[in-house]
Amino acid sequence: MTAVCPGSFDPITLGHLDIIERSTYIYDRVVVGIADNPSKAELFSLEERLDFTKEALKNLAKVEVLVFRSLLVEFAQEHGAKVIIKGLRAISDFEHEFQMAHLNKRLDNTIETVFLMASPECMFLSSSAVKEIAAYGGNISEFVPSGVEARLADKFLKD
Amino acid sequence: MTAVCPGSFDPITLGHLDIIERSTYIYDRVVVGIADNPSKAELFSLEERLDFTKEALKNLAKVEVLVFRSLLVEFAQEHGAKVIIKGLRAISDFEHEFQMAHLNKRLDNTIETVFLMASPECMFLSSSAVKEIAAYGGNISEFVPSGVEARLADKFLKD
Amino acid sequence: MTAVCPGSFDPITLGHLDIIERSTYIYDRVVVGIADNPSKAELFSLEERLDFTKEALKNLAKVEVLVFRSLLVEFAQEHGAKVIIKGLRAISDFEHEFQMAHLNKRLDNTIETVFLMASPECMFLSSSAVKEIAAYGGNISEFVPSGVEARLADKFLKD
Amino acid sequence: MTAVCPGSFDPITLGHLDIIERSTYIYDRVVVGIADNPSKAELFSLEERLDFTKEALKNLAKVEVLVFRSLLVEFAQEHGAKVIIKGLRAISDFEHEFQMAHLNKRLDNTIETVFLMASPECMFLSSSAVKEIAAYGGNISEFVPSGVEARLADKFLKD
Amino acid sequence: MTAVCPGSFDPITLGHLDIIERSTYIYDRVVVGIADNPSKAELFSLEERLDFTKEALKNLAKVEVLVFRSLLVEFAQEHGAKVIIKGLRAISDFEHEFQMAHLNKRLDNTIETVFLMASPECMFLSSSAVKEIAAYGGNISEFVPSGVEARLADKFLKD
Amino acid sequence: MTAVCPGSFDPITLGHLDIIERSTYIYDRVVVGIADNPSKAELFSLEERLDFTKEALKNLAKVEVLVFRSLLVEFAQEHGAKVIIKGLRAISDFEHEFQMAHLNKRLDNTIETVFLMASPECMFLSSSAVKEIAAYGGNISEFVPSGVEARLADKFLKD
Repeated sequence: MTAVCPGSFDPITLGHLDIIERSTYIYDRVVVGIADNPSKAELFSLEERLDFTKEALKNLAKVEVLVFRSLLVEFAQEHGAKVIIKGLRAISDFEHEFQMAHLNKRLDNTIETVFLMASPECMFLSSSAVKEIAAYGGNISEFVPSGVEARLADKFLKD
Repeated sequence: MTAVCPGSFDPITLGHLDIIERSTYIYDRVVVGIADNPSKAELFSLEERLDFTKEALKNLAKVEVLVFRSLLVEFAQEHGAKVIIKGLRAISDFEHEFQMAHLNKRLDNTIETVFLMASPECMFLSSSAVKEIAAYGGNISEFVPSGVEARLADKFLKD
Repeated sequence: MTAVCPGSFDPITLGHLDIIERSTYIYDRVVVGIADNPSKAELFSLEERLDFTKEALKNLAKVEVLVFRSLLVEFAQEHGAKVIIKGLRAISDFEHEFQMAHLNKRLDNTIETVFLMASPECMFLSSSAVKEIAAYGGNISEFVPSGVEARLADKFLKD
Repeated sequence: MTAVCPGSFDPITLGHLDIIERSTYIYDRVVVGIADNPSKAELFSLEERLDFTKEALKNLAKVEVLVFRSLLVEFAQEHGAKVIIKGLRAISDFEHEFQMAHLNKRLDNTIETVFLMASPECMFLSSSAVKEIAAYGGNISEFVPSGVEARLADKFLKD
Repeated sequence: MTAVCPGSFDPITLGHLDIIERSTYIYDRVVVGIADNPSKAELFSLEERLDFTKEALKNLAKVEVLVFRSLLVEFAQEHGAKVIIKGLRAISDFEHEFQMAHLNKRLDNTIETVFLMASPECMFLSSSAVKEIAAYGGNISEFVPSGVEARLADKFLKD
Repeated sequence: MTAVCPGSFDPITLGHLDIIERSTYIYDRVVVGIADNPSKAELFSLEERLDFTKEALKNLAKVEVLVFRSLLVEFAQEHGAKVIIKGLRAISDFEHEFQMAHLNKRLDNTIETVFLMASPECMFLSSSAVKEIAAYGGNISEFVPSGVEARLADKFLKD
């Protein structure tokens, strides 16, 4: 069974890593899809996001990292995935993901969205919180892979 | 009893239609108010929104479609409405609508906000989700009136 | 337009009164229905609940107080009501009421459930909280009609 | 991949059926576990629940129906399941399931709980709502398998 | 500043311990109040609860453990406390605690309820979940103080 | 005990005032911190916000008003505060604040975030709602200190 795990990964956090790693225990192949959404203003370029996401996941043999510019269900179809994986941290995640899961079901009802609960130590983590802390020079080493930590420091020094 | 049913309608979806039609069964007259809010960046111009909203509602005899540029309670007062109708889909709707209902009550306590639950098949629908799917060329025919479908296709082809 | 406003009213609180009074401003006739549900263990007997609910609402000319032992939609049908009124205080109310509204819609789709938001000063009020405070001899005069206050005192003295 | 899908099934509803059927599309084998929890007062006996659950699922080739009297993770271990499947309807489900998923992870961290969203038309369905409607003689044919409908009628006639 | 920290403690969990210990860092004296509520069916007797709660907290010098049979605000008044401490784990906690905080404020507006967030590793812990796991013989050593673990084992062996 | 109470105060509302005043009853010193966050587009300049916040709080002897440009935990450390105070109005506040409280705890685990519930009459108030009403010329005198009312009128006349 192939599953896709989509996101912006701007940047990837230890919360994303946790969900992706746990997915590899229950699916044969996990295709991580980095969304190239021109209408979203990301801190990191698509190339940077692809780069550090691949680096962070390089030890997970069942994982591939790819970019997608289409509807999520089309991305899943292309890769033969019948499952979309999403992590849930909180109520607001739940509501938005619930909406997206139903819309995706209407667009292709052969693809199921399955949800995994964020681990307790990752429930408070988000890419945007990590960026805010980094912007003020706070220590983010417990929140992101080491490669991302250095890049965030660069990003905010340059600015 | 006259009720107003306000919104941005950018664009109108089948979820809006459902709430408005159900409102006509319990109120004598339903004034649909399209908010002209200059601080919100809408995809469709006010004229376009007025146009396709009128078209979508043309078979509902008790419904009028108007634009408003004032506080919602002033719009209700102008049209002799004692009721504001809002659809509720989810928890985040609930919270925001709850806040607005109380503020409006403080601004004019003779006007009541009444809430109708979205129908199950419309609970996952929102104007923004529809626009996102259309932007990627996805099929939105089950989510919006046919007039809106064509216009969304135009909008994203032009861009 | 006739509306029904159902509940256990065990006992009626100022929160119930607020919703019922506001309902009379937007409906021609409000039938308050006291549920006679043998499987629920109520503090007050059906007779007591009917008695103090009538007393509390006696000055509202458009209101009738009745008992019902059937499905809520059947009670509404019997009284020619196309509207069921419910007050919403909080998220947990919202969820339960949402479920009930959809089920009732499936049982009779010509009847709409409309929701009014509890007034800010009533958002923390519930019959069960009032009973708990009264059980410890706390002052409940700001939470219930005066007739109910005396009866609650009696109830807990007797016990 | 084997998955377990636990519940009280008192009685099984079309909402349960929907989740179980969708599970068979993404797992090789789905073990439905009926909890024998002596501290819960169920309407139907364990035998009745086993009986109508088997009947309702008899056309799903990948599904087995069993009773369990142990911790859920032990039931999963016994059957070689690495996945526990739960349906999510609403926020209160979410919270409770979130708690259970984390506790189960602490008891055996090799077993993942995955969540599927209830289909829109099943979001308002619950065993307890179905029982309440049946108790008042309401029509439940759209909510439960036909075998359950007859048994519920029996149950409430007998009482 | 004296604070009271009320609860049933049936039994005390590591989640309670975490909130109480953190409270001692920001208040001079923390009075832990065990509610003696005759209408609640507890697993452990009041004496047992007093006993293991005292034992679990014996190393916290600023903490006293007492029983109360009155309204919480009266218990706070008796001990000169201007603060009631509550831990928040989740949305349903939030709603119930919000209601109680407002009612208590109405009963005595000189007493403030302050909320501390449960630590991530305790967010899924509750006395009732612990009891359920123990009832099935599951390992609860990571969830409760060691004294409680032994007593729970006894309780369920005896039964 | 010193507490910090951070915010954007764009503008300060009676809801902020309520939380800050109640904080002075349970802490010896309350440092109100106005966030200077260059990435947020505020209506009022930092100088204006400092000015009207000081004016609104001038009668509260235990309160100091300062600007901060660092991480919140660093601001707390600088002022010897072991407590961060936040007001909670609703579920969405809860979720965001929960996330921030945990992140701040990870950045400095000697500092506790404590939450106070908004008073019922302030639960629907927010700086953004006040600005929206003022933009349409609505009456905001019940929502903000008098100094802020005049400045908001100026702001929207000038525009």
